[in-house]
Amino acid sequence: MERILITGGTVLTMTGPDAVYEGGLVAIEDGRIAYAGPAQAAPAEVRAPGWAQRTIEATGRLVLPGLVNTHTHAAMVLLRGYADDMRLMEWLETKIWPVEANLTAEDVYWGTALACLESLLAGVTTFNDMYFFMADAARAVADTGARAVLSRGIIGSGEDFRSRLADAWDFYRAWHGKADGRVLTMLAPHAPYTVAPPELEKVAEAAAEMGVGIHIHLVETRDEVELLRQRYGKTAFEIIRDAGLTRHPVVGAHCVHPTDADMEIFAAAGGRVAHCPVSNLKLACGVAPILAWRRAGVPVGLGTDGAASANQMSLWGEIRLAALLQKNASGDPRAFTAYDAVHAATAGGARVLGLEDRIGTLEPGKRADLILVDARRPGLTPVHDPFSILAYSTNPGDVETVLVDGRVVVEDRRLTTMDAAEITAKAAEHARRLVGAA
Amino acid sequence: MERILITGGTVLTMTGPDAVYEGGLVAIEDGRIAYAGPAQAAPAEVRAPGWAQRTIEATGRLVLPGLVNTHTHAAMVLLRGYADDMRLMEWLETKIWPVEANLTAEDVYWGTALACLESLLAGVTTFNDMYFFMADAARAVADTGARAVLSRGIIGSGEDFRSRLADAWDFYRAWHGKADGRVLTMLAPHAPYTVAPPELEKVAEAAAEMGVGIHIHLVETRDEVELLRQRYGKTAFEIIRDAGLTRHPVVGAHCVHPTDADMEIFAAAGGRVAHCPVSNLKLACGVAPILAWRRAGVPVGLGTDGAASANQMSLWGEIRLAALLQKNASGDPRAFTAYDAVHAATAGGARVLGLEDRIGTLEPGKRADLILVDARRPGLTPVHDPFSILAYSTNPGDVETVLVDGRVVVEDRRLTTMDAAEITAKAAEHARRLVGAA
Repeated sequence: MERILITGGTVLTMTGPDAVYEGGLVAIEDGRIAYAGPAQAAPAEVRAPGWAQRTIEATGRLVLPGLVNTHTHAAMVLLRGYADDMRLMEWLETKIWPVEANLTAEDVYWGTALACLESLLAGVTTFNDMYFFMADAARAVADTGARAVLSRGIIGSGEDFRSRLADAWDFYRAWHGKADGRVLTMLAPHAPYTVAPPELEKVAEAAAEMGVGIHIHLVETRDEVELLRQRYGKTAFEIIRDAGLTRHPVVGAHCVHPTDADMEIFAAAGGRVAHCPVSNLKLACGVAPILAWRRAGVPVGLGTDGAASANQMSLWGEIRLAALLQKNASGDPRAFTAYDAVHAATAGGARVLGLEDRIGTLEPGKRADLILVDARRPGLTPVHDPFSILAYSTNPGDVETVLVDGRVVVEDRRLTTMDAAEITAKAAEHARRLVGAA
Repeated sequence: MERILITGGTVLTMTGPDAVYEGGLVAIEDGRIAYAGPAQAAPAEVRAPGWAQRTIEATGRLVLPGLVNTHTHAAMVLLRGYADDMRLMEWLETKIWPVEANLTAEDVYWGTALACLESLLAGVTTFNDMYFFMADAARAVADTGARAVLSRGIIGSGEDFRSRLADAWDFYRAWHGKADGRVLTMLAPHAPYTVAPPELEKVAEAAAEMGVGIHIHLVETRDEVELLRQRYGKTAFEIIRDAGLTRHPVVGAHCVHPTDADMEIFAAAGGRVAHCPVSNLKLACGVAPILAWRRAGVPVGLGTDGAASANQMSLWGEIRLAALLQKNASGDPRAFTAYDAVHAATAGGARVLGLEDRIGTLEPGKRADLILVDARRPGLTPVHDPFSILAYSTNPGDVETVLVDGRVVVEDRRLTTMDAAEITAKAAEHARRLVGAA
């Protein structure tokens, strides 16, 4: 593969708030980062004339790891804006479920392709997805050049449950580690209130056989906490622990309403939180206690949730809002700094997905997933502090160049891997059909 | 002036949630809207061949009024990201005030020009500004082609107060109604805790003589409410009423912590609220009770506040967050709909600034301030509901074309009135000098 040098930019390795290298250098070889840091400290080899086949001039740009979206339902971009400003159950029962009943594999392919396109243009290089027709989702990830952890959503009991778990097995066998390792899988029981303990136990057994993690919704709403208490006399965290799920790495989406004991259980089990601040406010679920989760030692990443609820696949709104909400909730503007927010969206997200050895920071040996943010744009001027610019001022259109696995997938704000206009037109067409058929 | 037709777009006049015209038409003559609505209902005259000197093809775009930013300190873009994640008083005393002490007229010109550039590119055509060196701010507004209500911030007592009020008079005489009416002025006593009642009375007298409104910070923090109670035994709203300020149209920035009686006072006086949700969260001030303000009959607009606290001049983050916060605060996702949020940023903002006869909706006779949002972009696809797309999915980079007063000031995402690169470079240079001198 191509050897690439990125020169002249402000390199933020996300290994710490002081790791800021103006006029820094990133060297990429075989899809991996060979070097990232001060230009003068780079190995002589990569600085030798002719080492790189390609040089990306990055003066005036911020160079940082690609963003990691730790919770979404990617193909739901087809339903973006289809039904907003509704109560959760009414929204599901009268709008989302009737439409999803008509969903086809091709819908999911084009929906996921649109989600990948939107994500990559915004600098989101990895996302953690839970949906159905996952082989088609995986094809879209492979074709667009994104990286994703994909899981077949599992819900229900009896034959429904068995066929979905069988789907998950098929998907795991066909796709885990494929597309040069850009596609990985987890197991995704929807939530403790939609999948009963005996089925959760079967998922835990499958996770042990596959050696993969768990992606699950946890305590998104107060209603759900109360329902579990009445039904089982337990909290969601007690249920997943008792079912054996927490013997595996668990990515808990939302985690808005834990008890103190829940935090201890989840921390002790090595659980991780996918914080979705936009979705949580939009559905009036509350503000997740992220400062407390961090104090408990639980890694925190950021997620968009599906675009049918949160309306964007870009993570920049979540970065900004995560910081703002924790400041306001704690009454302290010093809480959850700009660096903390950018960290949650990069290194933190990688840790949440168990991918900290592959992505999330710019360190030698990691896969070269990185983005260039054009800090010369009016809305990002002046750059007194690059983390502040990223956390509070950057919008999707400010991302200029995106690499995944050492490949330039976005160049000058355009997707290089597929025809973006075709993806957008096809997705719009599938969206119209889907809504028309409901 | 040029006659312009905008054809093929989805026209949202913001006169109501049902006023959505696909394949609609907007006709502009002499800087005013001659027609906006369904193409087939347009007067024969504007549809006659050759009527327009220029036709803007808007298929796939949403056409709506320019956004109105009802509270900012524009030139503070120079301090964007200079000092974040700090407590308000520490931030002011150790960072902002020392730097502002060195501020020059040229700093304010280039800072305001950058703010205008960022605003216009994001589709914000009007902003309500409180700062100093206002003649220089006005030159920047005039040169860039934006529309603004500009006010000299007035603070303190004695000679300080008198010289600032004299400044405000000079500014009013030199600039009120200038730049083809794009520059207007108000009087801006900073806040009831920084300007004492006798001085507030003098401002009220000046407002009567000038016939202008008042721009003032009101109950941004709980500390300030307590301070006024201790110092005067009154609320901020009682103070401004008793000083005679509310005999004039008052734009209250923030209005986070009113009592029920305050709401009645302000509503009875025809007061208006400039809601700044990003700034309020970032400084941990709380969530303004916007649903209650609206129930009390007080018009609500959206504001960014200065970029030193809220980091952007784009209003899209405020639109989204205003809706999200009211849903979460009320526990009802149906509260503050997508339409409500877009309305607050357009027609609502115009009403807050007392400009509802000139701007805020697309209606015949109003000044032609309008924007085209490119809804064909991946992040805005599909368009099941244009208000949802605008409220929850649109980012500054999605704004393609901007007109102010019938003049195309942004075309294909580029400023037409000045050299954007020069503005950005000059502003960055002034920002460096300013921070270096502190």
